[in-house]
Amino acid sequence: MPTLILTAKDVKELIDMPEVIEVVEKAFADWANGKAAMPPKAYVQVERGDFRAMPAAIPGGAGLKWVNVHPDNPSRNLPTVMAILIYNDPSTGYPLAIMDATELTAYRTGAAAAVASKYLARRDSRTLGLIGAGRQAHTQLMAHLSLFDLQEVRAYDRSPAATDRLIKAFPKTRIRAASLADAAESDIVCTVTPAHEPVLMKEHVRPGTHVNAIGADAAGKEELDPSILNNAVVVVDEIVQASRSGEINVPVSKGLFKVESIFATLGDIVSGKKVFERRPSAVTVFDSTGVAIEDVATAKLIYERARAEERYHAVDMVEA
Amino acid sequence: MPTLILTAKDVKELIDMPEVIEVVEKAFADWANGKAAMPPKAYVQVERGDFRAMPAAIPGGAGLKWVNVHPDNPSRNLPTVMAILIYNDPSTGYPLAIMDATELTAYRTGAAAAVASKYLARRDSRTLGLIGAGRQAHTQLMAHLSLFDLQEVRAYDRSPAATDRLIKAFPKTRIRAASLADAAESDIVCTVTPAHEPVLMKEHVRPGTHVNAIGADAAGKEELDPSILNNAVVVVDEIVQASRSGEINVPVSKGLFKVESIFATLGDIVSGKKVFERRPSAVTVFDSTGVAIEDVATAKLIYERARAEERYHAVDMVEA
Repeated sequence: MPTLILTAKDVKELIDMPEVIEVVEKAFADWANGKAAMPPKAYVQVERGDFRAMPAAIPGGAGLKWVNVHPDNPSRNLPTVMAILIYNDPSTGYPLAIMDATELTAYRTGAAAAVASKYLARRDSRTLGLIGAGRQAHTQLMAHLSLFDLQEVRAYDRSPAATDRLIKAFPKTRIRAASLADAAESDIVCTVTPAHEPVLMKEHVRPGTHVNAIGADAAGKEELDPSILNNAVVVVDEIVQASRSGEINVPVSKGLFKVESIFATLGDIVSGKKVFERRPSAVTVFDSTGVAIEDVATAKLIYERARAEERYHAVDMVEA
Repeated sequence: MPTLILTAKDVKELIDMPEVIEVVEKAFADWANGKAAMPPKAYVQVERGDFRAMPAAIPGGAGLKWVNVHPDNPSRNLPTVMAILIYNDPSTGYPLAIMDATELTAYRTGAAAAVASKYLARRDSRTLGLIGAGRQAHTQLMAHLSLFDLQEVRAYDRSPAATDRLIKAFPKTRIRAASLADAAESDIVCTVTPAHEPVLMKEHVRPGTHVNAIGADAAGKEELDPSILNNAVVVVDEIVQASRSGEINVPVSKGLFKVESIFATLGDIVSGKKVFERRPSAVTVFDSTGVAIEDVATAKLIYERARAEERYHAVDMVEA
């Protein structure tokens, strides 16, 4: 049995957002029900960046994503982040596929946010605000479009070119370039910036808003005014990781937000272990740091589709 | 710049033991001198086995080995252990190569033991005893043949077929099938069994012997009578890992050996941070658990050779 080698191009052909949302939601439920295994990310620091090993097992699939973050890469015409994922049969350990995981990461991040919006945002949400219109905003939009009947999308970015690219990428969707305040005045707001200081302030956020805080993924990064958190129902993907590197990491380190104030994990909510009943005026925040179960669930989907199509490159990688 | 895909067959063509010994020795020195980074292995348990993520960075190379252990695999005609390694440029994170790492693991394990023998065994060692003659014994022998002028090799295995295969694989080397006591009466002894109870007993070991304890790689496994350790100079590859899953793990857990009694790490010895002057009658033991710097150093070698030869399969794995 050979191993499938799936390039970035192959994965783009194979990936499909509605399916990714479904499997990511299920992965969170399985995890909350003790049916998944995921140790903490392991970090390797190097001179110009770092690498992260993200292993996990879910029902029917296991694997590992190995991803770098090298901030100076754009000056060398390379992406800051590149990721490879090895996908295995959990019952034998056989490496079924090795795939690029850059696009996969953007998709599963969008999917996790949309799942959070499904459980936390108002059901009749009709407007989406994107704070930051770069690459990750595209998959946030794509994911929310498949779960919500959006009447208008308001995109804010310091770079008008980024907003233009977003608008051109979704010709059928009503997207308009907006001010920060304007974008924030939406039913669902996704912050997808690399900010190290709050961008979204308390006065921007109306009662009843759901915020997906996506950008903060390392110690020192934050996008939200901490006082938003103190008056919000805060849900995280993983408590320890969120406290160390997610949106809450800076407020926690400054004593402005307490880990005990987290309402629940997304897995608790999705699995029904914790019930959230929305008051109309409540502000909800999902702090997304990205977890390996999302990656493995998405890889399983891609692998199964690639295997069925029988036209992808396969090699006898291991001797078996 | 594409990513090289190197199968088990490719790696076998490219790998060369004397070179592996050299780079593994250097990796241990670099690590002791603070020039390498290696977090602890991350484990993922699944129903029928487990997976281990082993990331590391050394000067000029970074990477991660992802390896499974599924004990029931032979009944399904699959190897118990299969490993894939992703090798990256540490300065950009670019995935330069993805390779099978099963053979690589056997080679680097042999190489690490030979490096330990170089520093710990008597310089005039002329006989090698192999306790266990399976796959790992082949690379132990290969590695010791490249550093020592061996007059005779004595191989003991419960299965005569395993010993036969070893003898046939090294037609130029004088190997004889031996009893356990006979094999143990050698200048250098390598234990390469899956034992969960001591195989090599105190009465087997002559003064002046160096023992490479290779087999124990998980909690509960041990190959040596603990009283051998108490009268020996004990060197480990990594202290925490050795205490939890190496040869010393069972004696440590039973209070029969103290972690403080470890003389040094192999890195300390190789780098000259700790000097070992052998008394003729001393018994030395190297407790090998296997560390990711060995894998990445070996992968760097294989990658560089493959890149130079320009005839291996390369794909545009990531978009860059």
